[in-house]
Amino acid sequence: MTNPYEQDLDRQPANFQPLTPITYLERAAMTYPDRLAIVHGAQRISYGDFWRRSRQLASALAGHGIGKGDTVTAMLSNTPPMLEAHFGVPMVKAVLHSVNTRLDAAVIAFQLDHAETKVLIVDREFSGVMREALALAKAKPLVIDYDDPDYPADAPYPKGERIGSVDYEDFVAGGDPDFAWSMPDDEWNALSLNYTSGTTGNPKGVVYHHRGAALMAYANTIHAGMGKNCVYLWTLPMFHCNGWCFPWTLALQGGTHVCLRWVRPKPIYDAIADHGVTHLCGAPIVMSVLINAKAEDKRDFAQTVTFNTAAAPPPEAVLAGMADAGFAVTHLYGLTETYGPAVVNEWNDAWDALDRDARSARKARQGVRYAPLEGLTVMDPETMTETPADGETLGEVMFRGNIVMKGYLKNRKATDEAFAGGWFHSGDLGVMHPDGYIQLKDRSKDIIISGGENISSIEVEDALYKHPAVATCGVVARDDEKWGEVPVAYVELKPDAAASEEEIIAHCRALLARFKVPKAVIFAEIPKTSTGKIQKFKLRGLAQGG
Amino acid sequence: MTNPYEQDLDRQPANFQPLTPITYLERAAMTYPDRLAIVHGAQRISYGDFWRRSRQLASALAGHGIGKGDTVTAMLSNTPPMLEAHFGVPMVKAVLHSVNTRLDAAVIAFQLDHAETKVLIVDREFSGVMREALALAKAKPLVIDYDDPDYPADAPYPKGERIGSVDYEDFVAGGDPDFAWSMPDDEWNALSLNYTSGTTGNPKGVVYHHRGAALMAYANTIHAGMGKNCVYLWTLPMFHCNGWCFPWTLALQGGTHVCLRWVRPKPIYDAIADHGVTHLCGAPIVMSVLINAKAEDKRDFAQTVTFNTAAAPPPEAVLAGMADAGFAVTHLYGLTETYGPAVVNEWNDAWDALDRDARSARKARQGVRYAPLEGLTVMDPETMTETPADGETLGEVMFRGNIVMKGYLKNRKATDEAFAGGWFHSGDLGVMHPDGYIQLKDRSKDIIISGGENISSIEVEDALYKHPAVATCGVVARDDEKWGEVPVAYVELKPDAAASEEEIIAHCRALLARFKVPKAVIFAEIPKTSTGKIQKFKLRGLAQGG
Repeated sequence: MTNPYEQDLDRQPANFQPLTPITYLERAAMTYPDRLAIVHGAQRISYGDFWRRSRQLASALAGHGIGKGDTVTAMLSNTPPMLEAHFGVPMVKAVLHSVNTRLDAAVIAFQLDHAETKVLIVDREFSGVMREALALAKAKPLVIDYDDPDYPADAPYPKGERIGSVDYEDFVAGGDPDFAWSMPDDEWNALSLNYTSGTTGNPKGVVYHHRGAALMAYANTIHAGMGKNCVYLWTLPMFHCNGWCFPWTLALQGGTHVCLRWVRPKPIYDAIADHGVTHLCGAPIVMSVLINAKAEDKRDFAQTVTFNTAAAPPPEAVLAGMADAGFAVTHLYGLTETYGPAVVNEWNDAWDALDRDARSARKARQGVRYAPLEGLTVMDPETMTETPADGETLGEVMFRGNIVMKGYLKNRKATDEAFAGGWFHSGDLGVMHPDGYIQLKDRSKDIIISGGENISSIEVEDALYKHPAVATCGVVARDDEKWGEVPVAYVELKPDAAASEEEIIAHCRALLARFKVPKAVIFAEIPKTSTGKIQKFKLRGLAQGG
Repeated sequence: MTNPYEQDLDRQPANFQPLTPITYLERAAMTYPDRLAIVHGAQRISYGDFWRRSRQLASALAGHGIGKGDTVTAMLSNTPPMLEAHFGVPMVKAVLHSVNTRLDAAVIAFQLDHAETKVLIVDREFSGVMREALALAKAKPLVIDYDDPDYPADAPYPKGERIGSVDYEDFVAGGDPDFAWSMPDDEWNALSLNYTSGTTGNPKGVVYHHRGAALMAYANTIHAGMGKNCVYLWTLPMFHCNGWCFPWTLALQGGTHVCLRWVRPKPIYDAIADHGVTHLCGAPIVMSVLINAKAEDKRDFAQTVTFNTAAAPPPEAVLAGMADAGFAVTHLYGLTETYGPAVVNEWNDAWDALDRDARSARKARQGVRYAPLEGLTVMDPETMTETPADGETLGEVMFRGNIVMKGYLKNRKATDEAFAGGWFHSGDLGVMHPDGYIQLKDRSKDIIISGGENISSIEVEDALYKHPAVATCGVVARDDEKWGEVPVAYVELKPDAAASEEEIIAHCRALLARFKVPKAVIFAEIPKTSTGKIQKFKLRGLAQGG
């Protein structure tokens, strides 16, 4: 029988358009042309100008022959050209590839070749390593130098030489501000490319589509509580999951971007006090920077600032310190493959009445899915059946929905593995609580198996963080003849704090089952990625070598 | 050449799911199971129970053989079953058809037959007219009575007899609260059906799809500023564009629905004061009810309440009265075909500094598009070219994007006409201002052409509203030998206010060009639709007859 609701009711231009975040900026520029879109040093860019400059960039790219499926690579700090690239590049149906600015030349060269980069925009801060990378790479892109007029006078790093054939401002100036930009042909078209850091083997290129980014913008606005006058400070690198999609998100409400080249306490506090910052994001390390800032670097501010942090659950002491300093912390979780955060620790007001330990336990959970993520669960990856929602049975955290990547570029095998059984396999181990909140227990490779018992390195690290002298720590396995593996702890102490190995071990004994207590404590600087993640594989290497 | 971004990167269950608002309620029920979802009289329904009851309803419908493409009709007030129907019906891939509760039996019968209603849920308030309609209709649906246990004791209308074969609560109780509900096969599938009131000819059935409703939920949340603890009062009928999609919207933030059977001042003020209402919607007439309430019906409240009003721009005096009473008014515009409001008068803070007249002029504009509406413009419908953005040249307001209906049910001709040239033709006349904001000038049929000059009835009405004694008014054309047409005014005075025809005309002369001044003022009760819209066609009939 014919279903009348499917007769003569087809998609057509009047009622169906591809979802894309580009239209959000178009709308903001029309609605709030004079509103402040971008603050960078002495620069003030309005929404009208942001839109015009993005179109100019698009026009200049089109003039250079860039179009659908071409890769434009950006190795930029959190500066205006990076924001412009988030709109100008997709306006010609090209794909924005952002390079982690801490990478070495060999990895960058791999990415340029794998992505088949046609145009490269590089900040002079990074021209040294990029020159090396270009020498190694087969790709021969048009190289555009960005020479930041607001490069801070007190820069910890000097600007490098120009290595390009054209200056960014000259390139943009050659474009038409009224350029007839293009909607994507399909919302499934690629929008951006982000390589995972990949501790072993070659990095994988995670491809985002317009649909996912458009939905993430709605979700970020709602879950982060971004109202009509939000001001966003760029502590999170935009090369990391496209800044969790916030370059696109802010256009929805016409919020203000405050650029930031380096995460240093004084410029952050200055931005909060001087520009009325309402929101910022970052790894837990950024919270440490804020809390442990010198008194003369801190500033008073009246507003409550929302700090979105991802990855490891923030230790209780850090949360308390942040609250005292005027920040409300929201705990998120996600991966490059999920456009950044896709899980949020949605706080139930009723939990405020719980005692301190119960509250801490609730805060340590990663939480529930973002609205545009249709599925989040914990499964046995062998059988693809859900683990019991008992808060104890370990399984692999799995995602499904519209904010999961399109796949890995030119890597069908990895894509198929990641999506086996109709779910994205995160590689993270966790549990499902009876109320449907998930909690990470460990990266599978970070589980320490000692005497047949699983030890979560997170649990041991949590105990270490409760010691007043501990600034940063990482717990990894060391091979052991008797137990198979034993946990050892690498610890960085706070400035001017002191503690002995014995003291730290005694502290852990008071908090942990005996088999979980580190067998050794090594005081050392902890190796971290550019985004503040502790590099466990390096610690593991050290632990095995020691 | 092959585009690597389109190789082996296809849609699959892990990264592509149909957009649907059903998943928002699922998420809210898991995240906030104990949070208050629905207040109705003495009833308190949690999010957990809202979800379970919706699944029970779905299960009971499935048990009755209801599935994809079947129509479930609801003639209900703003009560819990109407909210449950917004989720339970689409959970079995069926389509929710909401009947305007003020319609007569013949129109209802037409709708039941046209929609091929399989199941009908009817509140006992409307059983009298529905019995007549069923006698007229060919459709023989399963009829379910809803017997509201919280039918107000001071009801202005008595409950009618039962006319169904089963009671709503019994029907739901027969369903399984753990029913395995279905995602739509495609986000383009039909979700709901709303007939336009259609002043002439048969009503047209506007079909909504899951994609549009899912996007409207995001847009409503953002544009109406609905935060985590929003409380929504149901002054707007849910049968009107599915309550502008707010039944689905609130699930995103886990907000509370406060039901309301009739728009009367005392229950509204009581709800605001007792339940902490933060948001409500309605036609301008609802604002009049609030402002003109008797002192003993009013209540004090601490919160600012956001009032979203659509259709006619609120007169300055009404806005001032609303501000004094503690309401912040947002002016929206849209049609049944655009899921309710799709245009918002986005206020620029800079306009606060304008003088009173300039501010009024800004407030009178309908505004800019909602974020998920990709296009909004004013065109000459003959040539499909945009009118100059000069704030003066009249054209037809046109919409394009993802919150435009799927089309008219079983009416290809009307659908094709409405979507001619790739845009939805609203039938509303307006202008585009230089800054991209649109302003309605009139429904095409409401333009009065006098001596070759166009008179906007809205402009004349605005002048009338500035008279302190005028409560409601409507201006229409009366045929005139000399001028072709002349404007005449129908006026309803405020309680205890007095004014003569001469006085009103003199008032208009001070504000309007002479040819725009009404040639007659008739004091009478103004006929309105169930949603508070003034029925111009009735006034036109009266004016021609007079």
